[in-house]
Amino acid sequence: MSTIDSNTRRMEKIVSLCKRRGFIFQSSEIYGGLNGFWDYGPMGVELKRNLKDFWWRRTVRERDDMVGMDGSIIMNRAVWKASGHEATFSDPMVDCKSCKARHRADQLPEKGGAKYCPNCGSRELTEPRDFNLMFKSHAGPLETEDNLVYLRPETAQAMFVNFRNVLDTSRKKLPFGIAQIGKAFRNEINPRNYIFRSREFEQMEIEYFCRAEDGLALTDYWLEQRLRFYEDIGIPREKIHIVDIPDGDRAFYSKKTYDLEYEFPFGVSELEGIAYRTDYDLSAHIAASGKPLDYFDEVTKEKFVPHVVEPSAGVDRTTLALICEAFAEETVTDEKGNAETRTVLRFHPRMAPIKAGIFPLLKNKPELVAKAREIVDLLRPHMMVQSDESGAIGRRYRRQDEVGTPFCVTVDFATIGESERGEEGQGSNASGQLDTVTLRHRDSMQQERIAIADLRDWLLERIR
Amino acid sequence: MSTIDSNTRRMEKIVSLCKRRGFIFQSSEIYGGLNGFWDYGPMGVELKRNLKDFWWRRTVRERDDMVGMDGSIIMNRAVWKASGHEATFSDPMVDCKSCKARHRADQLPEKGGAKYCPNCGSRELTEPRDFNLMFKSHAGPLETEDNLVYLRPETAQAMFVNFRNVLDTSRKKLPFGIAQIGKAFRNEINPRNYIFRSREFEQMEIEYFCRAEDGLALTDYWLEQRLRFYEDIGIPREKIHIVDIPDGDRAFYSKKTYDLEYEFPFGVSELEGIAYRTDYDLSAHIAASGKPLDYFDEVTKEKFVPHVVEPSAGVDRTTLALICEAFAEETVTDEKGNAETRTVLRFHPRMAPIKAGIFPLLKNKPELVAKAREIVDLLRPHMMVQSDESGAIGRRYRRQDEVGTPFCVTVDFATIGESERGEEGQGSNASGQLDTVTLRHRDSMQQERIAIADLRDWLLERIR
Repeated sequence: MSTIDSNTRRMEKIVSLCKRRGFIFQSSEIYGGLNGFWDYGPMGVELKRNLKDFWWRRTVRERDDMVGMDGSIIMNRAVWKASGHEATFSDPMVDCKSCKARHRADQLPEKGGAKYCPNCGSRELTEPRDFNLMFKSHAGPLETEDNLVYLRPETAQAMFVNFRNVLDTSRKKLPFGIAQIGKAFRNEINPRNYIFRSREFEQMEIEYFCRAEDGLALTDYWLEQRLRFYEDIGIPREKIHIVDIPDGDRAFYSKKTYDLEYEFPFGVSELEGIAYRTDYDLSAHIAASGKPLDYFDEVTKEKFVPHVVEPSAGVDRTTLALICEAFAEETVTDEKGNAETRTVLRFHPRMAPIKAGIFPLLKNKPELVAKAREIVDLLRPHMMVQSDESGAIGRRYRRQDEVGTPFCVTVDFATIGESERGEEGQGSNASGQLDTVTLRHRDSMQQERIAIADLRDWLLERIR
Repeated sequence: MSTIDSNTRRMEKIVSLCKRRGFIFQSSEIYGGLNGFWDYGPMGVELKRNLKDFWWRRTVRERDDMVGMDGSIIMNRAVWKASGHEATFSDPMVDCKSCKARHRADQLPEKGGAKYCPNCGSRELTEPRDFNLMFKSHAGPLETEDNLVYLRPETAQAMFVNFRNVLDTSRKKLPFGIAQIGKAFRNEINPRNYIFRSREFEQMEIEYFCRAEDGLALTDYWLEQRLRFYEDIGIPREKIHIVDIPDGDRAFYSKKTYDLEYEFPFGVSELEGIAYRTDYDLSAHIAASGKPLDYFDEVTKEKFVPHVVEPSAGVDRTTLALICEAFAEETVTDEKGNAETRTVLRFHPRMAPIKAGIFPLLKNKPELVAKAREIVDLLRPHMMVQSDESGAIGRRYRRQDEVGTPFCVTVDFATIGESERGEEGQGSNASGQLDTVTLRHRDSMQQERIAIADLRDWLLERIR
């Protein structure tokens, strides 16, 4: 099998697992779906929450120089005029004259030097025209030009237009940053690659304000911070391609831009951009609004427009990278000595949707069930756990492997001080294991015994 | 001052505090704002996160019978045809023929039995017409009827159309529920009462599926659960008005509906609705999609369409209720014996944006600053803390009072084993206080000493 075929096959397996185990569904699937829109199921929403919560903790909660905010998706249209999005946030679009399909001009396939329609093969294409990617709507009861609004195509602008409000209320001094997580919308001509390029997506963005002379160094500082973040969620540094965007390819106002790319099965693609945007954004809003979005240094008595470094990451793309990085199939031998394929998501424990599966060995043994319930109650206020009583224990392990649960806890006869035949334990072995459980590791499949009294802290140490 | 005046004044003070301390800003304020849209600042975003996280924990994580999901805001238009929103989700609207202002017909003021325009006073109004509250847009590069989409006016429908997907992937048995938190949009003709009735808002919704015979009892069960939830976030049961919506006033398919209302300064208004919606929603989607959204009971071998109980709460409304409930002004006496007004937000510690303020008594004493930093590092992985070194300690306490921080921790000379004059402590008193800090309570303003070694767990117990 060629690498392309095997990557295609791998992606198909990932998409299938994501649907089968409740990570990702097509939006409005019972009505045939909607191109470019996706829903997160019970496992997907937990994975995404863990990612966003950890980003918030690292970015906002654990730093003195950062604050969060949460702006509205629909903003005054003037914001998008000032930012340049209304005039220039567009992709070149062509129509196929033969089958009427629309395509991005820069993504057309080519044969013999000529572009052609990937839908019907025709070379009869219109000239490229600009198509603005912002979703339009109207706020208020009239569909007039005055009421025209856009769904934000990025969360960033809310942080620029609130710069003064945040500065005045948070008492921060430069350098400091604002962080935001939220939905954004882009009316992509051709959504593709699953949740990688969709029309509705979520961003985690930082605007880090600084003095002009610190901009370049802080861009490198944030590059390092963000690489550490990816490492801390289970995406190793060597899997991230750092692209230093050369002069001429960057936005005209940017003095430095790094793209962080990940090797998805469908190709190396952008996870995050870290752009030193100089004072372009604040200056644009000062010019358009006439409001003083500048900074006064109380020590030097200088007044100036801060520069900004913007590390901008995609929630959905990172979620997909986590799944792709975690997905593994391996051949293992079952209890009867037969080889079988084990599908496992090797999530970092802090990202895993479920932290521990809690199983009574048998569901018809009330003491085992009651003890398992006690353990669920012990852990549940602190982490996501799942109890499962049905089927052979090996099958229960496999079910947790497929959703990436790093640890399974089994309450067995030793836990309640009985031998398997139901007698009360008397030997030193049985009594020594009283109030202990079997802890099974997802990746090594090794098992060990651990005291129930130690369980909570043992798990907390590994999932935080 | 009349009650109405004093409530108006109270609301003005709350709005002013929320802006001044970074809870809530007007969206796009530097461009004159946008009617019905709001941004959450550094304090507001933390308050809202605490509310949503606690709802998720209680509703999803701590229950065996619930799973979460996160659907897209834009769904296939067929969803809104089937749900009835496209045909009937509207308010009656009238135009003033004189000043051209638009109003909700059912909210017009009245004088001498005749309605009039609240803008110009004219009684020349058009006949009421239905105005659909869903924001419209187009997905795809053509603004055609085929591409028409709506921004969801509620999160609920995503849970109905995914019923089968969730059932198949989560292995739940009836009764079980799906929970979701997310943005929704309603193009209100007259947004009002601050963040109470805005055009963009966030919901926390539960769809709890059950057998028909359990619907009424489960509606009462959820009423009790939801009242406990409000108690647990600091809104006492006696502040919630329970309205049992009488026959004839409920939606035709609902057999029982409770509205939970809170006494906002602008009047008693709805926080949450708990509606027993029978099998209306799933049946509507079965009819429209032809897909089998039914349930098969493996024990009784019956196949049927589940009924549903829907507790639907507003994130922004609950956030506003938390702020209104917490807001207090009281007269206290300062160190010099002068009476002054203390403004304080008495949030439940688990809702408070900042859990603890950490202060070195003096900022020019390196040992104090270093010790305070140690405490920040100790607590920060577990909770939101804020360090503050500037100004008199009393002023620092007041700043934290205004944003509702329940506890302040001051590192003083006793902490580092010195007397205030800088000598090393020798007496039993000083050495007994080594590695202890002053813990100050927001509400009582009482202070006590606590060992640094106990601090983390002491705080965790109170904020979880």
